[in-house]
Amino acid sequence: MTSRPSFHLHDYLTARREIINAELNNLLRSSDPSRRIVEAMRYALIGSGKRLRPILCIAAAEAAGGNYKDVLPAACALEMIHTYSLIHDDLPSMDDDRLRRGKSTCHVAFDEATAILAGDALLTLAFEILANPDDTHSSDLEIRLKVIRMIARAAGYCGMIEGQMRDIRFEGKPLSPDKLKSLYALKTGALINVAVESGAQLAGCASKKIVALTDYADYIGLAFQVADDILNVEGDPDRMGKAVGTDAVRKKNTYPALLGLDASKALAGELVCSALAVLASFDYSAEPLRMIARYIIERKR
Amino acid sequence: MTSRPSFHLHDYLTARREIINAELNNLLRSSDPSRRIVEAMRYALIGSGKRLRPILCIAAAEAAGGNYKDVLPAACALEMIHTYSLIHDDLPSMDDDRLRRGKSTCHVAFDEATAILAGDALLTLAFEILANPDDTHSSDLEIRLKVIRMIARAAGYCGMIEGQMRDIRFEGKPLSPDKLKSLYALKTGALINVAVESGAQLAGCASKKIVALTDYADYIGLAFQVADDILNVEGDPDRMGKAVGTDAVRKKNTYPALLGLDASKALAGELVCSALAVLASFDYSAEPLRMIARYIIERKR
Repeated sequence: MTSRPSFHLHDYLTARREIINAELNNLLRSSDPSRRIVEAMRYALIGSGKRLRPILCIAAAEAAGGNYKDVLPAACALEMIHTYSLIHDDLPSMDDDRLRRGKSTCHVAFDEATAILAGDALLTLAFEILANPDDTHSSDLEIRLKVIRMIARAAGYCGMIEGQMRDIRFEGKPLSPDKLKSLYALKTGALINVAVESGAQLAGCASKKIVALTDYADYIGLAFQVADDILNVEGDPDRMGKAVGTDAVRKKNTYPALLGLDASKALAGELVCSALAVLASFDYSAEPLRMIARYIIERKR
Repeated sequence: MTSRPSFHLHDYLTARREIINAELNNLLRSSDPSRRIVEAMRYALIGSGKRLRPILCIAAAEAAGGNYKDVLPAACALEMIHTYSLIHDDLPSMDDDRLRRGKSTCHVAFDEATAILAGDALLTLAFEILANPDDTHSSDLEIRLKVIRMIARAAGYCGMIEGQMRDIRFEGKPLSPDKLKSLYALKTGALINVAVESGAQLAGCASKKIVALTDYADYIGLAFQVADDILNVEGDPDRMGKAVGTDAVRKKNTYPALLGLDASKALAGELVCSALAVLASFDYSAEPLRMIARYIIERKR
């Protein structure tokens, strides 16, 4: 039996965030940082994000026996895709949000055209990074192409973008629990799922383990969104760095609106239990994934 | 000496457009075509576009001894990236255009949020297609990754997106000829160039020939933009499917504004001569590229 060193989630998240932030900074260095597009991209990308998707990608690679270095570029690409989706979702013609990650949204700090282009540029840069042939930690080329395709599919019109379409379309129109679940599976679940799966794939994970890891991702993806809905009701806007109470004002479909706050909390807890259960056969290397599952519903931002 | 069959540009362009349009249609088929995002993507993508970039990709592959089938998916991906850039450039916060390809722009026909997301979705789908491992006509995997990276770089914040940033930023502010040339090299040149290079790379072209082909692309890329500027002054809006005279109203930097109409026409002609000169060592297989170079300045739309 291997001894289990005590695992501190806070230290793990902090250490991983530092690595991710340093790499994001490195990937967006520019010979001319004063270019407005670079400024806007850096403004949105560099800062206080939770970095959940890149951390999940890294933790999944570690659970599959890999090293964080194998997947760091892919992890950063995922964060760029997530950030692009936030920039575009915050636009006046979509959610019209003015505060994000504790500061003005990109279109408020710059202008609408620059924000649209900065989002476009982060999405495009993500694929440039995923296809980087100079990456010395590259896995098998076939797997790398597969990962690009998986990520594009998850982020695209059959995944995250369809989720955002439905989110806008169904504002003010009550949904059934099933419809809300499938909306969330697209809007946030798809990218969270592919973060876990791409980490595992790039680390050379066996397919049986990948099934368990993507099941884990499905559970925590929904748990994350339920927790987000709850934070929008009772979170502290200062800690969260964005406004709260906005879902109710906009008559958004959320779990608290649909089930009430207590039932939503119970559901989030059950989802995390299910996520932990599918990891039962994993050894200590999956401890970060287990801790992240708990963190997802305990977080205050 | 091989006999030279007579080469009819019109027939070539029509045949290639038909192949490209059929494949675009095929790539955007959906199990649920009534989904609004799919409708908006199809609305912008399917129709009367010139298909210059995919045709160049195919013609470059043919000039390099390849077959159009080798590069058809990549060619279509390039058209999707071009179409996404048109959708976003036409938005109210950018060029605020209401007419494109003979019909209402995407945000007019749908709405702004849907147009932004349809553009995002076409960009993302382009990368999904480029990374398709099921593609039976796939080249060497390393080349395919290289092509993804090249295309992302050309379309990204150091290429096309920077060009659009400058185009907006310098509206009403006169530029020197050198600055206008470098703006155009980014805004339209980068994607035209990578269309030619990716076609050649995927067809397994020797590197010496690739240098000639990308030089050709640089010349015709600029010639295309100069011709576009001229058409905006004296083109027929019915044939072009978009408004004319808009550059002067917006005080856009254009070649006619900078050099006058006659000097602009002379420049376009010289650029095409230069493009033909760099193809001197190519045999009959480069005839489509030669004809396209002439077409670029003779076209009426």
